[in-house]
Amino acid sequence: MNAKNLISITDFSKEEYLRIMDLAADFEANPDQRLLDGKVVATLFFEPSTRTRLSFETAINRLGGEIIGFTDSSSSSVTKGETLHDTIKMVSNYADLIVMRHPLEGSARYASEVSDVPVINAGDGANQHPTQTLLDLYSIVKTQDRLDDINLFMVGDLKYGRTVHSLLMAMSHFNNPIFNFIAPPELAMPNEYKLYLQSKGMRYFEHTEFTDIISEADIIYMTRVQKERFPDPVDYEKVKNVYILRNKMLKHTKDNMRILHPLPRVNEIHTDVDSNPKAYYFDQARNGVYTRMAIIAHLLNLK
Amino acid sequence: MNAKNLISITDFSKEEYLRIMDLAADFEANPDQRLLDGKVVATLFFEPSTRTRLSFETAINRLGGEIIGFTDSSSSSVTKGETLHDTIKMVSNYADLIVMRHPLEGSARYASEVSDVPVINAGDGANQHPTQTLLDLYSIVKTQDRLDDINLFMVGDLKYGRTVHSLLMAMSHFNNPIFNFIAPPELAMPNEYKLYLQSKGMRYFEHTEFTDIISEADIIYMTRVQKERFPDPVDYEKVKNVYILRNKMLKHTKDNMRILHPLPRVNEIHTDVDSNPKAYYFDQARNGVYTRMAIIAHLLNLK
Amino acid sequence: MNAKNLISITDFSKEEYLRIMDLAADFEANPDQRLLDGKVVATLFFEPSTRTRLSFETAINRLGGEIIGFTDSSSSSVTKGETLHDTIKMVSNYADLIVMRHPLEGSARYASEVSDVPVINAGDGANQHPTQTLLDLYSIVKTQDRLDDINLFMVGDLKYGRTVHSLLMAMSHFNNPIFNFIAPPELAMPNEYKLYLQSKGMRYFEHTEFTDIISEADIIYMTRVQKERFPDPVDYEKVKNVYILRNKMLKHTKDNMRILHPLPRVNEIHTDVDSNPKAYYFDQARNGVYTRMAIIAHLLNLK
Repeated sequence: MNAKNLISITDFSKEEYLRIMDLAADFEANPDQRLLDGKVVATLFFEPSTRTRLSFETAINRLGGEIIGFTDSSSSSVTKGETLHDTIKMVSNYADLIVMRHPLEGSARYASEVSDVPVINAGDGANQHPTQTLLDLYSIVKTQDRLDDINLFMVGDLKYGRTVHSLLMAMSHFNNPIFNFIAPPELAMPNEYKLYLQSKGMRYFEHTEFTDIISEADIIYMTRVQKERFPDPVDYEKVKNVYILRNKMLKHTKDNMRILHPLPRVNEIHTDVDSNPKAYYFDQARNGVYTRMAIIAHLLNLK
Repeated sequence: MNAKNLISITDFSKEEYLRIMDLAADFEANPDQRLLDGKVVATLFFEPSTRTRLSFETAINRLGGEIIGFTDSSSSSVTKGETLHDTIKMVSNYADLIVMRHPLEGSARYASEVSDVPVINAGDGANQHPTQTLLDLYSIVKTQDRLDDINLFMVGDLKYGRTVHSLLMAMSHFNNPIFNFIAPPELAMPNEYKLYLQSKGMRYFEHTEFTDIISEADIIYMTRVQKERFPDPVDYEKVKNVYILRNKMLKHTKDNMRILHPLPRVNEIHTDVDSNPKAYYFDQARNGVYTRMAIIAHLLNLK
Repeated sequence: MNAKNLISITDFSKEEYLRIMDLAADFEANPDQRLLDGKVVATLFFEPSTRTRLSFETAINRLGGEIIGFTDSSSSSVTKGETLHDTIKMVSNYADLIVMRHPLEGSARYASEVSDVPVINAGDGANQHPTQTLLDLYSIVKTQDRLDDINLFMVGDLKYGRTVHSLLMAMSHFNNPIFNFIAPPELAMPNEYKLYLQSKGMRYFEHTEFTDIISEADIIYMTRVQKERFPDPVDYEKVKNVYILRNKMLKHTKDNMRILHPLPRVNEIHTDVDSNPKAYYFDQARNGVYTRMAIIAHLLNLK
């Protein structure tokens, strides 16, 4: 068995990132490539995640593959007293590829060790969601025409947000990134990531609110500030309106700047931004389909 | 964007009704037309409606299309704090067509304004369920060989039943219909519909129970009388057995008369009717597949 | 209508068993046979059974068929006050084949009498689960290269376990089987099955625990001993560790002996057995796909 998996964003080398970007662009230009004809993909969602599931299922369908699976383990009998080991063993006898979402950190890695077929991690708890990172990268390269020399603003919950952590790790493979972190002190970027950037000699700057410096941004990556993250609700009330992006704030930003968001958005991007050409979050969702087609084709050696 | 939608039965002209009827007959004669090959359709059921969903998914499958979606928003994460606007924006980046069921009146119209791809309303609360009306029309033309000069009996809950309201509007496009309404006073056909028929010079008659006049019916359209509709349960008890169709009542009806029902039936059509050749409600369900194939082909300009 | 159904294992003759075995072997050797192209199969799970559903859906997908259905009647509106009769009537107007799981004994037989298309019973309460039995048979013939002269050990809950009852009935069609039953007295094989074997002159032996005699086994069929089956929990505590198969117990078994289990396993097969080549339960799951492809092809006269 020479199965390849995508469990963590660190599983892929820079060359593999670039190959995924190339494949995604190829699928975007030529979406009718039925490379999965006659193949079955299992989408095992041990916790619901409709957005990620729909994106994967669109990618699989556009590649001509068939889908089995479940959308929610509570309405499923698969886990009735059964170990994850046995569920994965069983499903890997049915399918040619497993896409798995699970609430437990580390579950995806474990599944890949048990499975006879490749496993793609579609999110394992607070740990990893590597296909999100790859579609973020694709959205950056598509809009900026490069992955080097990117001035990247990350806004909101930088402490718990796995998407910003993974994107930071991925961007650190490229030349000369500048990171600007905008977050309340309670949700600041953890030290380990800052030390990691220091160890690579990469620049980062920390802010507790939006400043004029966003005029230098190539990408503003917005995330949601959740009330539940604050031990004291009073602290939340103090900052809840600070991390909301509004259209008037975009006036002096670069023409080519683009706003990303992993979605769903709640109120952290005001709807008056939606019609601004710099709003890119819905296009980003479409990029997710091409990127996931690329990842599947790469892991199954279909291209 | 020149997307066409089907939100309300009034969106379609008489010519479009007739075109859908022709296309449905064509699909019934030649069901193997893979016009949706390589296309993805999203079936977004924000409330469960298995019957409508299965009918649409059969139509999509028979056309060769692929399906993504959800069957129930409660087991879905799609709406977790997300606006309908954002959900539709996202999904219209994945799919070539959206079929949507939603409990809120007006939600389908709103979705069609947001979406980049055509939207079919599969029911928005008490408001509209236009594909049901088109399959009802197809069932009438198929069994009566005409849509003009139809004597149509509507029985049961004529106050709240959206299917009878839409069917009345649709039939008013054709020549010389006669409407007979059989309902308890509490559930009588609302005045606005009677005034509408008057304004078009069309005849209607009201009854509070079945009479010998059903011998003149071409179509008897049965609906369910629900206990919840009566402010006083005593009133329900008084009428609950009045609007039940039994086989012996069909003796003097026309040979070619057919009984329709949008299903599910509870007890308003006695099971002793099922084996009568005039019982058409299960064939009507099959017609729903051909009609929905026709609607999809029409909206996407596939024929 | 000349529809053929699979409701009970007794519906099939010995010749049909053998034909299913041949077809299954053919599908295993040549899985890419798109015999269901353009056909729609309904998978109606009135109670969840993810394992059985995934196996059927894999089989249907690998045959090129399309799937409609539901995974759980609680999240479905199909049964809202609607009789099983009407649901089946409706669905048989949509699909070319119905696969049905239902909690009520006898429901599958009733559905087959109502349906216009073939029905496969995917489990009706404690009654029947015939496709499980056919995949068990296929696993036996594949590993033992014969169905005659099999020494078959059945272990665990032999009183309530429908899989062991059906397998016993099926094996009694073949020459010279030997049955060894290992169960606590509370869960012993019911008298009716023992009388049945006596009437056919077939040998069986009863044990209350594992003995050296398993060295003679060709097949050990493990099932789970459930706490809920014991009126007195104390009785369960006494036996709960008696019916656990461990790797060290396999030392003196035949080289060619294979361990089967319908899955899910809880703890009745210790995980130290999994890496023993005699552990066959996950391969058995894969055989389920080929067997179900064979059953579908047989019932629809596709081969």
